[in-house]
Amino acid sequence: MAQSPAITLTTDFGTTDGYAGAVKGVLLSRAPGVPLIDLAHDVAPFDRVGAFLLLRTAVRHFPVGTVHLVVVDPGVGTARRGLVVRAQGQTLVGPDSGILPALFPAAEVRAWALKPARFAGAAPTFHGRDVFAPVAAALALGEAPENLADPVQDAERLALPAASRVGNLAKGEVIHVDRFGNLVSNLAARALDNSAHVSISVDRKPVKFAATFGDVKPGETVAYWGSGGLLEIAVRDGNARERFGGLGVAVEIVKYA
Amino acid sequence: MAQSPAITLTTDFGTTDGYAGAVKGVLLSRAPGVPLIDLAHDVAPFDRVGAFLLLRTAVRHFPVGTVHLVVVDPGVGTARRGLVVRAQGQTLVGPDSGILPALFPAAEVRAWALKPARFAGAAPTFHGRDVFAPVAAALALGEAPENLADPVQDAERLALPAASRVGNLAKGEVIHVDRFGNLVSNLAARALDNSAHVSISVDRKPVKFAATFGDVKPGETVAYWGSGGLLEIAVRDGNARERFGGLGVAVEIVKYA
Amino acid sequence: MAQSPAITLTTDFGTTDGYAGAVKGVLLSRAPGVPLIDLAHDVAPFDRVGAFLLLRTAVRHFPVGTVHLVVVDPGVGTARRGLVVRAQGQTLVGPDSGILPALFPAAEVRAWALKPARFAGAAPTFHGRDVFAPVAAALALGEAPENLADPVQDAERLALPAASRVGNLAKGEVIHVDRFGNLVSNLAARALDNSAHVSISVDRKPVKFAATFGDVKPGETVAYWGSGGLLEIAVRDGNARERFGGLGVAVEIVKYA
Repeated sequence: MAQSPAITLTTDFGTTDGYAGAVKGVLLSRAPGVPLIDLAHDVAPFDRVGAFLLLRTAVRHFPVGTVHLVVVDPGVGTARRGLVVRAQGQTLVGPDSGILPALFPAAEVRAWALKPARFAGAAPTFHGRDVFAPVAAALALGEAPENLADPVQDAERLALPAASRVGNLAKGEVIHVDRFGNLVSNLAARALDNSAHVSISVDRKPVKFAATFGDVKPGETVAYWGSGGLLEIAVRDGNARERFGGLGVAVEIVKYA
Repeated sequence: MAQSPAITLTTDFGTTDGYAGAVKGVLLSRAPGVPLIDLAHDVAPFDRVGAFLLLRTAVRHFPVGTVHLVVVDPGVGTARRGLVVRAQGQTLVGPDSGILPALFPAAEVRAWALKPARFAGAAPTFHGRDVFAPVAAALALGEAPENLADPVQDAERLALPAASRVGNLAKGEVIHVDRFGNLVSNLAARALDNSAHVSISVDRKPVKFAATFGDVKPGETVAYWGSGGLLEIAVRDGNARERFGGLGVAVEIVKYA
Repeated sequence: MAQSPAITLTTDFGTTDGYAGAVKGVLLSRAPGVPLIDLAHDVAPFDRVGAFLLLRTAVRHFPVGTVHLVVVDPGVGTARRGLVVRAQGQTLVGPDSGILPALFPAAEVRAWALKPARFAGAAPTFHGRDVFAPVAAALALGEAPENLADPVQDAERLALPAASRVGNLAKGEVIHVDRFGNLVSNLAARALDNSAHVSISVDRKPVKFAATFGDVKPGETVAYWGSGGLLEIAVRDGNARERFGGLGVAVEIVKYA
């Protein structure tokens, strides 16, 4: 099998402690010639939802065959499995923390649990370096998952806060705040057929729906379908988190015929 | 035309939201084999002056043929053009926000505006991924700007606060504070013939002029010509911003015969 | 000599000011084809201990022949030497600030001081770009250190706070706090033969010793041998710095027969 076009890295290690650097050293040593691409090392510690949304935004744009190493691991230092996940031509490697399989529709995901021997001799607090990086490197060189791991059907799937729908009312909440203070909700475009004939509220306050920032005046709030397919709320030239608050704030859509 | 030696990335996306990652995925998919080099993703949101100074410091050191993708965009979500700029062997791509042409003397800059068709179907809030990354990839593979964009003469140019000069007095101000708390002014070395026979004040307080930190004692303030050719002010082993304040603080030079 | 598999970068420049970008431009221009790998640009300004611990964690995992450019430089702008250090198949380049030789046992380190001519014409506040990057690029292309620098025996060595040992009592302190709030001490595993029959205290409070987080309950404190071989203290699902304080807090081990 062909060599991967790249290995990407997503961790909550930060960069100042050298852990991300050690992982890069292992990857470069074991898979020389495969470019390393940083997605993020500043995922908030143990923030599985943040890592999930990041990967949901980024992974699908990489070329087929890319290997994504994802180490955001609330279970570090405890017994939990390592996973390899394949879907849509992408391969992901990391702890069984619910992030990887949740990125894809269940129907098309294939998952493998790393063989226990892979953990033998590994530093218990640094599986990223001793377990997941070597596996990512092997996969990037064309090794078949079957040679490293056993097929599983029961991989954990991260559950985002669920949006609800009753008739023409969809009730959701803010699940992420981006760097610009824009609010990302759990209301998906498909929920309401992407109709523009809607009435939207954030924290019970009505908000204008538009295609983009440019359709409202500076300082005005706008709701729009974000590039990731979820309803987002922004203040043009401002900060929506400061106006409405962040995680958990109610977002509702009423659809009109 | 030859493939570019690299594509650099400068954005205000941060890395935790996955937007920078998505852009990298597009670049890697469309220009496989061209190395991706991060300049910065932590430009302050919409900070055009910060991005301008960053690029002014970095771009000229890259090999001829490098493509620089620059997405710092106060106009995101509004109608504004996309630009390709070529000067001094460097190619830059990004929104028409004034940064790119301002990096070079007007005489030598060639600029093109992306053809409107390039924006068709793009997510209105993510032109970085849907418009500028594909154009950067095409240019990196050797595509001529003429095939993607139309020549323009009216590209916006970012105007920094202007320094003034009356006789032997040059009046400027702090336009940037770096990570070390050093103050970068808008007084250029050429303004006073790089003379060492000068008297300098910051916020009306006299400051010693020297070639470098090593010429003053720890805790003492020093003004010097920075590596970017602008007058900078530092406190040796200390923080000049804490001593004098930041953006807008007055910096003056009097030159003696 | 063969081309290096990579050049890594470790600086306290941050990325927003363009200094790290300028260094990358120089490396790419002078050593085209050698991959650039970021270790960190967010080392705290002038933090030699932080840079030392980072490199201690990361460097040994890189393939033989890697060149590591390290610019964390309290002496910027003063007269101090530039160093090339070779040990264990790794080559390091940077100011003579004590970091590089300290990473390896003295016996096996070879060090060279850059010839003074290397500093001629360099911007006094930007040796990273004008001196160290060109040297790193030359070494990465296979140049012998002897052609760039003169052998020295007196390179400065960073001294970490020393742990002491009296009989079966080892007294140390916290020398680093990582991104998760875990405390890294200066007590090395070899200090007490890696024995598990120990009693450990942090700030005079007894702390459980275990192989890993998984051996204590959420909210409980645990001491363990970190992946870098030093005793570390963590709070499972919590933050040890908030519980005990950070740099300088006393850590003690009593060993029982």
